[in-house]
Amino acid sequence: MKTYLDCYPCFLRQALSAARKAQASDDQQKRILIDTMQALNDLPDDATPPEMALRIHRQVREQTGIDDPYRKDKQQATQEALALYPELKRLVETSPDPLQTSVRLAIAGNIIDLGAAETYDLEQNIQRVLEQTPAINDLEPLRQALAATPTLLYLADNAGETVFDRILIETISLPVTYAVKASPIINDATREDAIAAGIDPLAQIIDNGSNAPGTLLPYCSADFRQHFEKADLIIAKGQANYESLSSVAGPLYFLLQAKCDVIARDLHVTRGDTILKRQGIK
Amino acid sequence: MKTYLDCYPCFLRQALSAARKAQASDDQQKRILIDTMQALNDLPDDATPPEMALRIHRQVREQTGIDDPYRKDKQQATQEALALYPELKRLVETSPDPLQTSVRLAIAGNIIDLGAAETYDLEQNIQRVLEQTPAINDLEPLRQALAATPTLLYLADNAGETVFDRILIETISLPVTYAVKASPIINDATREDAIAAGIDPLAQIIDNGSNAPGTLLPYCSADFRQHFEKADLIIAKGQANYESLSSVAGPLYFLLQAKCDVIARDLHVTRGDTILKRQGIK
Repeated sequence: MKTYLDCYPCFLRQALSAARKAQASDDQQKRILIDTMQALNDLPDDATPPEMALRIHRQVREQTGIDDPYRKDKQQATQEALALYPELKRLVETSPDPLQTSVRLAIAGNIIDLGAAETYDLEQNIQRVLEQTPAINDLEPLRQALAATPTLLYLADNAGETVFDRILIETISLPVTYAVKASPIINDATREDAIAAGIDPLAQIIDNGSNAPGTLLPYCSADFRQHFEKADLIIAKGQANYESLSSVAGPLYFLLQAKCDVIARDLHVTRGDTILKRQGIK
Repeated sequence: MKTYLDCYPCFLRQALSAARKAQASDDQQKRILIDTMQALNDLPDDATPPEMALRIHRQVREQTGIDDPYRKDKQQATQEALALYPELKRLVETSPDPLQTSVRLAIAGNIIDLGAAETYDLEQNIQRVLEQTPAINDLEPLRQALAATPTLLYLADNAGETVFDRILIETISLPVTYAVKASPIINDATREDAIAAGIDPLAQIIDNGSNAPGTLLPYCSADFRQHFEKADLIIAKGQANYESLSSVAGPLYFLLQAKCDVIARDLHVTRGDTILKRQGIK
C-alpha cells in the first residue's frame, strides 16, 4: 500500500509520541519532527508507510540513544494478554467453531498497536471483534488452506498480540514458523516477546532480519526471504504487514483491524472493521 | 500562546483538510503539505498558532485560486444556528440568570470551529455547555465589568457562532462594536457572516483589517488597533483569539471551549472544558 497524504500528519504524531516515550528533550523532539518532515519531503511516491516508520524510529533511537522506547509497554501488554489467556482458551474450547473463534481472537489482539493510536481498550475490543463478522471474510478459503497445507509461516505483529496468535496456533495444530522482528521497533514483537507469550514450545521462532514494521522484503535477511518464498501458506498479522505486502504474491491471509481511515479506504471498508483477506498466488 | 510541537501534526491535518475543501488536485494537496512542512521548519520559537494558520491558508488560496473554501460551511452553520435562535432566546428569557445563560450559549457556539476539528455536534454541545460550570469561571468579574463599562468591543470568531454572540449582545444591552475578519480564513466570520447572523442592527460591525485567525495585532489595520487600544472592555471569542492575545494587556475576557489537548494544557484544564477567563490590564 502506498503512503497517502493523510499519513503525513499521522507520521508527525507518531514521531512525537515515540520521541517522548524515549524521554527525548524538547530540542530532541523538535529535531525528530524536523527530520520526519524532511523525510516526508524526500519520500518516493511508491514508498509504503512502514518505510517511513523505519526512518522515524531510527531517528528516535539515534537522537536519544534509547533502543527500545516501548519495552515496558510491550511487557505490560504481554502480561495483560496472558492474564486473559485462560478465559480466551475456554471460549475457543467451548466454541462450536474453534477455528473461527481463534481467528477472531487473533484479529482482536491486533488492537494492541501503539503505532496507529496512543491507547486502546483491549477487553472491550475483544468482545466487539468476537461478535462482529469481518468486513472481508475469507474464513472458508483459510479453513480449506489450513486443512491442505503441511506447514504455516506466521508473520507476527505486536507484543501482547502474540498471546492471541498463540491461541490460534494451538487451535490449528500445524508445524508453524513464527517470524518476529530482529530488533525493536514501536511495540512490534521480537524473539523475547514471542517467548514471553509462550510461543516457544509451539512454533519455531525466527526473526526476519529487519526492524521495519510489517515485512519489507528487501530489508529482510536472505534466510527469511527464503522462508517466505518457500512457504506453503502465510498468515500475516496487522496493518503494517498489509501495508508492506499488499502487492506481493500469496498464498497469504491478512488478519487485521482497520484502525485508521487510510487503510480502511484502501481496503474499501470502514474504520474499525475487521479483515480476514486472502491474497492469491497471482 | 506559543506553538507547541503537538501543533505540528495538527497543522498538516488542517492544511490537507483546507486543500481538499478548496478542491485541490492531488499534486496541489502535496505541494500544500510540503509548503506547510517548510513553514514549520522555519517557524520562529515564539510564533503563535494563528501565524502558522495564516501561512497555510494563504498557500491554499494561492495554489487553488479559491478565496473562500469554507463559504458553504459558513452559510450552513449560520442557517443551522438561526434555526435554533428562537429556542435559545426562550432559554435566556426564562432563565433566572440571563447573563450566565447567554454567556454559556456564547461559549457553546464556539464548537462551530472547522480549524480545530473536522466535524462537531452542535445541539449535543449546547446541552453539555449549558449544564457545565466553566473550568475557569470569571463570570462575576465579567458581570461587574459589564455593569460598569460604557461600551464593549466584541472580537468575533466563527460564522454560525455569530448567532450565539448575537444572543449575548442582545442580553447585555450595551453599545457594542463587533469585530470580524477583513476577508475569509477557515470558517471565521466576515462582515457578510455577521450580517447574515442578524448582528447588524445590534452592533457596529467593523473588520480588523486582517485575515489571520484570532487577532494578530501587528497584522491588523491601524484603525482596528486604535479601537482595540481604546476599548473600555473586550470580549474575545474562541481558541485563536486566546492563542493570539494571551500575552496582551486587557481588560479582556476570553470565552472559549478548549477543543484540543494543547490549549487545554496551556490553560491547565481538560480538553472539552469551557473557559470564561479574565485577563487584567497588567
